[in-house]
Amino acid sequence: MTRPYNFSAGPAAMPEDVLRQAAAEMLDWHGSGMSVMEMSHRGKEFISICEQAEADLRELLAVPSNYRVLFMQGGGLAENAIVPMNLAGLRPSQAIDYVVTGSWSQKSAKEGQKYGNALVAASGADNGFTTIPDAATWQLRDGTSYVHLCSNETIHGVEFQELPDLRALGCDAPLVIDFSSHVLSRTVDWSRVGLAFGGAQKNIGPAGVTLVVVREDLLGHALPVCPSAFDYKTVADNHSMYNTPPTYSIYMAGLTFQWLKAQQEGALTGVAAMEARNIAKAKLLYDFIDGSQLYVNNVDKACRSRMNVPFLLRDESRNDAFLAQAKARGLLQLKGHKSVGGMRASIYNAMPLAGVQALVDFMREFEKTQA
Amino acid sequence: MTRPYNFSAGPAAMPEDVLRQAAAEMLDWHGSGMSVMEMSHRGKEFISICEQAEADLRELLAVPSNYRVLFMQGGGLAENAIVPMNLAGLRPSQAIDYVVTGSWSQKSAKEGQKYGNALVAASGADNGFTTIPDAATWQLRDGTSYVHLCSNETIHGVEFQELPDLRALGCDAPLVIDFSSHVLSRTVDWSRVGLAFGGAQKNIGPAGVTLVVVREDLLGHALPVCPSAFDYKTVADNHSMYNTPPTYSIYMAGLTFQWLKAQQEGALTGVAAMEARNIAKAKLLYDFIDGSQLYVNNVDKACRSRMNVPFLLRDESRNDAFLAQAKARGLLQLKGHKSVGGMRASIYNAMPLAGVQALVDFMREFEKTQA
Repeated sequence: MTRPYNFSAGPAAMPEDVLRQAAAEMLDWHGSGMSVMEMSHRGKEFISICEQAEADLRELLAVPSNYRVLFMQGGGLAENAIVPMNLAGLRPSQAIDYVVTGSWSQKSAKEGQKYGNALVAASGADNGFTTIPDAATWQLRDGTSYVHLCSNETIHGVEFQELPDLRALGCDAPLVIDFSSHVLSRTVDWSRVGLAFGGAQKNIGPAGVTLVVVREDLLGHALPVCPSAFDYKTVADNHSMYNTPPTYSIYMAGLTFQWLKAQQEGALTGVAAMEARNIAKAKLLYDFIDGSQLYVNNVDKACRSRMNVPFLLRDESRNDAFLAQAKARGLLQLKGHKSVGGMRASIYNAMPLAGVQALVDFMREFEKTQA
Repeated sequence: MTRPYNFSAGPAAMPEDVLRQAAAEMLDWHGSGMSVMEMSHRGKEFISICEQAEADLRELLAVPSNYRVLFMQGGGLAENAIVPMNLAGLRPSQAIDYVVTGSWSQKSAKEGQKYGNALVAASGADNGFTTIPDAATWQLRDGTSYVHLCSNETIHGVEFQELPDLRALGCDAPLVIDFSSHVLSRTVDWSRVGLAFGGAQKNIGPAGVTLVVVREDLLGHALPVCPSAFDYKTVADNHSMYNTPPTYSIYMAGLTFQWLKAQQEGALTGVAAMEARNIAKAKLLYDFIDGSQLYVNNVDKACRSRMNVPFLLRDESRNDAFLAQAKARGLLQLKGHKSVGGMRASIYNAMPLAGVQALVDFMREFEKTQA
């Protein structure tokens, strides 16, 4: 039996193969007699799982050797405080410049005010977050501790297709990116990034583990108020085991990394294969929306997200019927975020092209029958 | 086939029935077409799971209606900072009095210094944490914001058999307990507790979810530096969904709560049944140790933990043989914590009496054959 297609924005669909393997190993991992949930995090079995997960992630994302990979807790919203508690003190100014391109970076900028001299360097609010302000217009301050942006806005469906080169903009501060909702969907240009963080519940695994990739020179600058469990240096020095890590979530992330490594698209493998597939999936859906009379997506084509496709029905009285009929067809969790309304199709790595095709087929049919 | 008996201190053994149900539901929860991992935390399916888990926990622990139940992230070590960030400001003194009875309360007291005027009111360090200082000797300050203790010390195997009545000691501050490693193993006298917190990975479920039970009048006093995601009032107001909660861990906790409710011991059910069983398990093991020539536990009998039984071999050269032979007999993860050495048998709720009997049988045999 085919499983339904699940378009949840997160926690989101996971690869079926990963779920099957997890179910099969639930009571006995590799003959250990234990579920992964039952293993001491300090035992050799779990340490091997954690080390393999990190190695696979490093390979998939081509993480340079001078960056540390941390598995933490609290998700993106906690990182909105944890990042400034660790990095605001990088320079005497304690200044943080935020590029605001949607709900998530807006929240980050607000939380940052608790820990530093936070200012919005640029904002897409004036046009309803449908474009990304040109980097040449960003008001970056001299001596700022770091610059923050959200490289894919899950709610507004806005994605940086290229990360800014801060040095070319005359800014020598590190760039921090919140890549929660598109991590592993495309390659990362680490030469432009000092720190990247992301909640797992879109492209990595179950909610409850947060990935942080941080350049080593940014460790060791935490403010005195930073909790020990969230001090990047403490976490790094203890290989993510200062406090008990979310072991099962890390295991599931590791299975997902293995699945990603095995993906092929023509001659491409891993993240490059996913990127090609994600481009094709997004094109299929956006092209259909743009050609329809019923559906509309208002985001500038230059910064449309490949992962999160929000769209409205021009006749909003049809919303409930759309969702009910979609669900009956096995197309789940298409309701848009409450703050923007309408619909949203999140088409993360685990969503196959066939799922997007099924959605487009349904949308075409729905448009015709309701006309 | 019988599964091995797993004596891990945490993450620890889980009920086999719970693991079997989780495996069976992995790809499709109750006909939803989704794994629990794949559900939006804001959808009706997951909200029903979370509400049921909270209701079951409230019933099991008899939580009064003026206490809020929060599902958070970061474990006990993060709470060492989160508690004072929320409660140190309860009174102008910002004073916190710690009762130190082992490694965990020691760590709490150290972390508390970042956020308040933290002092050790009593300590068992002088006798190697083998006794709990008499409450009449605790140096509690007038106007202190709160008093902290760890009601079961996982490493030193020291447990409060009764919580102190602070009012009877002339102290009107709320009591905070870290009940991570014995939650749900016995009843809680809430009339003596303002806030209780615990990591899940002993008696609740997988690592990655932290339980906080807090009296309502203690909400809303967070220090300005407290991250929004860890402000108890914000978490409570959002029903533990201010940030994406660790959904799968909450689901597993909920399955464990259901399992606990179904447990019977004579006329007793739920936590009362577990408590009777835990008393019997602990008696079996301590009685054997006290009667043996090879094994020793140095903790005062009045405060020995029912959950964590550390013991030493009088001849430590036999440690490796002990662990290897135990493992060969299907008795897993008996190595003591690195800070104290020796052995430790953690016999949480999921460990049946038969598992403790199997351990005692092995220990007796090992003592004889090696003599």
